[in-house]
Amino acid sequence: MNLNEEVEVLKGVPIFSKMELARLKLIAFTGERMTYLEGQELCHQGDPGDAMYVILGGVAEVLIDTPAGPIPVAELRKNNFVGETAILCDVPRTATVKAREPVVTLKITKDMFYRLVAEFPQMAIEIMRELAHRVDDTNKKLEELTAANRAA
Amino acid sequence: MNLNEEVEVLKGVPIFSKMELARLKLIAFTGERMTYLEGQELCHQGDPGDAMYVILGGVAEVLIDTPAGPIPVAELRKNNFVGETAILCDVPRTATVKAREPVVTLKITKDMFYRLVAEFPQMAIEIMRELAHRVDDTNKKLEELTAANRAA
Repeated sequence: MNLNEEVEVLKGVPIFSKMELARLKLIAFTGERMTYLEGQELCHQGDPGDAMYVILGGVAEVLIDTPAGPIPVAELRKNNFVGETAILCDVPRTATVKAREPVVTLKITKDMFYRLVAEFPQMAIEIMRELAHRVDDTNKKLEELTAANRAA
Repeated sequence: MNLNEEVEVLKGVPIFSKMELARLKLIAFTGERMTYLEGQELCHQGDPGDAMYVILGGVAEVLIDTPAGPIPVAELRKNNFVGETAILCDVPRTATVKAREPVVTLKITKDMFYRLVAEFPQMAIEIMRELAHRVDDTNKKLEELTAANRAA
């Protein structure tokens, strides 16, 4: 991808959608592009983490360790972001993320993340919105499972 | 509470902790203080919502409607915040919040919330941090329940 193509891709990512063009160019220019082949890991549960990833293309899966081995809990596609928990909460990676097919990401380091949020409150709002949705979705699944268990 | 006492309380709330004194005074002055007696509801699942609440004192419980009636899913105490989903995601209240003992809150309207976040990125960071923790906690509960169900 050349810089202009990349800016077009970033414009489609909700957390960047309200940013001005000059800023998107800067992100496209300074952000690290990472490509993962099928089976390669973006991050591994338990490892320290100092970056989040925005998926620019491909499909990755989120896996959680269980006594019976890792189980898939979510799928990530273009425009999704992942890895924010480790940089926001200063905890090790809470899940493993693995490419199911070739995946291209924009890597946003912790420093870059805090700088972007400070300069672009709209990005913080989009991230809060997505996190609030995730809390809500997970709570709904939890309620359904609890209700099913009570009925059983 | 007088204004100075209130500012002291706000200083202890993580989402306001890094704000300068003048700003805290403004929040204390303009924010609406609400008091709820035992059994009174801060918000009701399914209702439209245009504000979030920071708990300044007392204990409230979060209840979710189920076919078997409302079940408690969380407890809120001093410094917790609640109600952000409705204002971030433009959805009706996703839960009922009810005072278990007298509760004092600072009501932050949607407009005020977006203004504060735009001016104080640190507040956005604290909210993102808390939401990331909630995602993580809820996911862990879901994993435990899933693992228990598989073992059963």
